[in-house]
This record gives sequence, C-alpha cells and structure tokens, in this order.
Amino acid sequence: MEGSSDMTDVTIFGAGNMGSAIAGILTDGGSTVEHITTSSKDPAVSGDIVILAVPYAAFNDIIARYGAQLAGKIVVDITNPLDFSTFSLIVPPGSSAAAELAGKLPASRVLKAFNTNFAATLASKTIGSQPVTVLVAGDDAVAKSALAGAVAAGGVTVIDAGPLARARELEAVAYLQMNLAVAEKIGWAGGLSVVK
Amino acid sequence: MEGSSDMTDVTIFGAGNMGSAIAGILTDGGSTVEHITTSSKDPAVSGDIVILAVPYAAFNDIIARYGAQLAGKIVVDITNPLDFSTFSLIVPPGSSAAAELAGKLPASRVLKAFNTNFAATLASKTIGSQPVTVLVAGDDAVAKSALAGAVAAGGVTVIDAGPLARARELEAVAYLQMNLAVAEKIGWAGGLSVVK
Repeated sequence: MEGSSDMTDVTIFGAGNMGSAIAGILTDGGSTVEHITTSSKDPAVSGDIVILAVPYAAFNDIIARYGAQLAGKIVVDITNPLDFSTFSLIVPPGSSAAAELAGKLPASRVLKAFNTNFAATLASKTIGSQPVTVLVAGDDAVAKSALAGAVAAGGVTVIDAGPLARARELEAVAYLQMNLAVAEKIGWAGGLSVVK
Repeated sequence: MEGSSDMTDVTIFGAGNMGSAIAGILTDGGSTVEHITTSSKDPAVSGDIVILAVPYAAFNDIIARYGAQLAGKIVVDITNPLDFSTFSLIVPPGSSAAAELAGKLPASRVLKAFNTNFAATLASKTIGSQPVTVLVAGDDAVAKSALAGAVAAGGVTVIDAGPLARARELEAVAYLQMNLAVAEKIGWAGGLSVVK
C-alpha cells in the first residue's frame, strides 16, 4: 500500500528477534527508533507509532504501566496469542489478540502487523527467493498509511489486509505457519509468502 | 509429504474451475477421474478418493443423496464456507467446513485440501514464479498419504498441515486470500505461497 513517508518516531516495546528486525527496517527507512524493555524505568513513550514486540501475555502489564501514554497513538500488535506449553490459541474463537488489545486501549489506534512474518524474514527482508511482504490490518486508514510509509521507506512491501477484524485471519495464518515450522515442514526463514 | 502412489480411482463432485484443475493434476499423475455433477443421475460413486469440489451450500444435498456410498471412503473437502452475498464466513467461529462435514459423515475419512489454492494456480501448477503447494489436513494418516501420493504423482508438492482441526486455519488463510483478491491487492493467480 502507499503510505506517508515523513520521518517517524517509533517506540518498540521489546528488543528480541522481532523487535530488532522491525527496528532494522524502520531505521533503514529513516525512522528514529527507541526500545522499551522490562529493564526500562517507565520512561515516557516518545514514538507516534508504538510497536508491541512482546509476548501477548505481557500486554496487561504494559497497559497498566503505559496505557494512559498510548492514548491517541498508533499501537501495533504483532503477537500470536499462544500458550507455548500446549501450543494452543488463548483468545476466544472469533476474536484475536488485536481485538482484545483494541478493547483495552479504546483511545489508541490499534493495528495488526508483522505477525505473519517470521523474524528471520524481516531481518533479511526476504522469504525464500522473494521480497518479504508485511500485511497490515486496522480500522484507521491514516494510521495504516503512517505505518506503511515507515515500513516501505525501509524497503519492505506492505499490503493493506483490511479492517482490524482481519486480524483473526492474520493470526490464523501465523498459527498455521508456526505449526508447520514446529513440525519441520517448513523452516523458520520460510512461511506463507504473499504472491501478487 | 510422501505418499503412496499406486494408480487411484477418484470421483470429483463438480466440474467447475477447481474440479477441473484438480482433475488435471490427478490425471497427469495416472489417476482415473470421474466427475459427478448436478445433471448426473445418482450414479454409483466409484472412486476410493472422493473430492467435493462444490460450494459448501451443496454439501447437505450431496450427503442426503450419496452419504451412504461415502462410508469408508476418503472424502476431501476443498470448500471455503462463505456467504458470497455478504462475503462472510458461515460456519461457527472455532469450527470449519471440514469439521462440520466430518460430523455429518462419521463413517468417512474426511480430509481438507486444495482450499488454499486458487484454481488458476492448480491449473498451472505454479503460483507466481514458484511451484504451487497443496496443504492437506486430516486425522487419518493413511488417507492423507493416499491423497498426497495421487497429487504428487501429478507433479504438485503436498505438505501435511496436521490434524483436521487445522482446517480452521486453512479456511482462514483462504478467506484472507480471497479478501485480498477481491480488494485487488493480489490477483486470482496469486495468493499465499508456501516457502520452505
């Protein structure tokens, strides 16, 4: 999708494989990125775009500590809501992590993105021999355009996957993909690639 | 996945784009294929593998007319259960067309397959510049192997996507893919391609 591409301030909660790979794309595109981790001392959240690159289980703590600061901001959910001990989904059927988050952050502009991309594909910007594509869902067109612009400026294609309700399908794609990888049917640098 | 590859008798309900494309792969692999359509006069279902390449809404009629003959057979659900007037899913959240079908055909060996492949990709055996992959889910390993063998013999890669419960995710993948195509974000010869 097309997007605005002014320089953007981004705050990423988490600095794991996903948070680092996303930061790499955004800084390549000229965005300024700060990370907040569990060792951070409740700093101000300076980014206009805030990416929650943490496990789904960490959402409630982040909301309790930072929720008021997230009002008005673009908040990007990248999670796949799994109980990793049973490898089962932990949101109600028909809902999604993103829908649950939006319910808890009604003053924020919640987007779903990056959850269908394994970290290695974001780090390399490729999946197999092809460029990687980031799918973004959300109900706020301006917010989607801002995120898309920042990602596209970093050299990664973004496709608008529709309203936030589509997060349900994006999480299903990722859940299937993770099951395939765990079963060694595909590798963690592979997955489901968007072909136009 | 590996599969048995003896010559197979296959009955395909339906002769539309999907039924024809699947028939092409199977006959390329040496299987014998017969089609049953709405103009057929309730013939015997001769195939050991029976592929329901019809809209989900046609299942009840097929079950009423042919259900007894499907006992013991491998029955392949390729559907995506949509109300095309509203483009919304018509199975309960958490369920799937395949799970509903398996509930109505308890004596059959129900598999989910082909539903994540647009017809054009099966007809050409390619998606973009890559070979197409068929994902198969089911609880009967012998049945999955039989279908995989017949498809692989036709030159198309098959990956075991896990138990029939994964049909929920396979249907979500397809629903997302169809939404992307309807929104003209991708074409009907594209989609989500499996990258190993």
